[in-house]
Amino acid sequence: MRAAVFRSGGMMVAEVPEPVPAAGQVLVKTLCCGICGSDLHYAKHAVHMTELSKRVPGRAPLDLSRDVVFGHEFCGEVLDYGPGTERKLKAGTLVCSMPVIPQAEGHRTVGYSNDFPGGFGERMVLAESLLLAVPNGLSAEHAALTEPLAVGIHAVEKADLKEGDQPLVIGCGPVGLAAIVGLRLKGVHPIIAADFSPKRRELAAKMGADIVIDPKKESPYAKLAAGRRAVIFECVGVPGLLQQVFEAAPKDARVVVAGVCMEPDRIEPLFGILKELSVQFVLGYTPEEFARCLRLLAEGQVEADALITGKVGLDGVKGAFEELANPERHTKILVEPWR
Amino acid sequence: MRAAVFRSGGMMVAEVPEPVPAAGQVLVKTLCCGICGSDLHYAKHAVHMTELSKRVPGRAPLDLSRDVVFGHEFCGEVLDYGPGTERKLKAGTLVCSMPVIPQAEGHRTVGYSNDFPGGFGERMVLAESLLLAVPNGLSAEHAALTEPLAVGIHAVEKADLKEGDQPLVIGCGPVGLAAIVGLRLKGVHPIIAADFSPKRRELAAKMGADIVIDPKKESPYAKLAAGRRAVIFECVGVPGLLQQVFEAAPKDARVVVAGVCMEPDRIEPLFGILKELSVQFVLGYTPEEFARCLRLLAEGQVEADALITGKVGLDGVKGAFEELANPERHTKILVEPWR
Repeated sequence: MRAAVFRSGGMMVAEVPEPVPAAGQVLVKTLCCGICGSDLHYAKHAVHMTELSKRVPGRAPLDLSRDVVFGHEFCGEVLDYGPGTERKLKAGTLVCSMPVIPQAEGHRTVGYSNDFPGGFGERMVLAESLLLAVPNGLSAEHAALTEPLAVGIHAVEKADLKEGDQPLVIGCGPVGLAAIVGLRLKGVHPIIAADFSPKRRELAAKMGADIVIDPKKESPYAKLAAGRRAVIFECVGVPGLLQQVFEAAPKDARVVVAGVCMEPDRIEPLFGILKELSVQFVLGYTPEEFARCLRLLAEGQVEADALITGKVGLDGVKGAFEELANPERHTKILVEPWR
Repeated sequence: MRAAVFRSGGMMVAEVPEPVPAAGQVLVKTLCCGICGSDLHYAKHAVHMTELSKRVPGRAPLDLSRDVVFGHEFCGEVLDYGPGTERKLKAGTLVCSMPVIPQAEGHRTVGYSNDFPGGFGERMVLAESLLLAVPNGLSAEHAALTEPLAVGIHAVEKADLKEGDQPLVIGCGPVGLAAIVGLRLKGVHPIIAADFSPKRRELAAKMGADIVIDPKKESPYAKLAAGRRAVIFECVGVPGLLQQVFEAAPKDARVVVAGVCMEPDRIEPLFGILKELSVQFVLGYTPEEFARCLRLLAEGQVEADALITGKVGLDGVKGAFEELANPERHTKILVEPWR
């Protein structure tokens, strides 16, 4: 099949082996798949990430001498089933799934694996046990937002918010925007959000932020009321950001690290110590959170259209990776491999 | 009065101005005062710490061109009162206090201030409102352990332990040993503790650790049972230690940073992210925790004698700072300025 592959450190379109559903797996046609900031990060830091994977037990490192098909924010259509499957959803059903293949030796990740191509290819195999039928009427495009939305919803859950907490979202890319949605749904106010980009600040307001700040003009931390615990969502994920939060955070703040910084970072622990900060690193979501996000989208509780700023075919993936560097132009670009 | 002062980057004995109790303050004779790891750190990193204080709102930076009298783990004897005091404790009463002088513009720290000499001087002024009479019969030496014990008790409180959590204490210096006491009093078992020093491992067992590990021989993390949340107390406070914990910690672990690393540090956030670690930085204690520690000592619930490994007069402070680098010889050295 055709796919946009990560090969020799860059993105290109190529023929890759047709995925074949094994026991318990289903073959789907990819209808659309969002490009995630992590895909860009990974493409940039692939060698470092692979080395790092070897140091984390249970992580299968990528073989960078082989192709990798990224894409883990997808919606597809059931084509066929592998052996030993229940086949409850008939061919043609729109489906979402967590990008995970449970296996005896631990789960594998669809889209960050040499063996399980992700949504930047025409077809994927998924685990039948994780399939969720897209509720009637929700478009594939909106359904594909389930995954990035779940990342933000999970960050809000892990924040363990208490009565009176005041949230501050640093960075209004897809993760920050999803966190804002999660905070709005929890009814926590005011939601303060900060981003250098006017476009992203506009989206932050649309998603439910009450106070939107340009950090070039004023400090978002100055908007935090004294006497309430600050819960700061770090949704940027670049070196230096955590230290910036450490320096600016008020005493006893809780910091939720939802940005995925893939490089080594420098902190001054003493800021954390003197302020008794708590830092919660987060990743992914639970199956329940994922399913809830699909329902939220189906119920129209998320301004999904505003988040999708572009669509490309496989030939456009390489260019889209470059374009996404500009926060004024894009939030989420969807890849439609069938184009 | 005579004091061991920090001057020109080193410790020396000198005459310093006699402290005079202002409104709400009490003059005490220092009976004894423990040397804290933070004193050694501060002496080593004084310039850096002073620069750093300027970047933390509400911290009054030290003027290093003036003398500083360290010492914040003290027991004293009431000598006299300043104006506007209630004078409930008569002269001669043994007292402890948090090393803090509440002031309108924020509190000042006894022992890390140019204006409030700490326990390495013959006399101190303390806040009358914070004075605690030492319960009858408890020696000044044991009462002086209240402060370092409170640091460990506070770390255990901030750990927010849940049913089934398993604690691991990394580093069995005074802070780690106090954390072990706190864990024992909470009835959390098994308490796993690790230190390179045989002497400190012996003390860890004496304080209540159930499993004591030499990290040179085996990994303390290997003793953690799967399926229970690990709560790791980082009680070392040197650069690199936090990253070591990040790499070795199991998924979903809670890390309590009780070690005071005063230098910049390098972490790889991705380890935190992939494992969804939570990190709680801690400092100090509450007034209630401080008072409880004095009671615990008075009730004989802490093997206090084992912790005190030396006593010196003011002339011995400089040497004691050097000796404390050797974990085989010393845990807590008490300074007795009246000697």
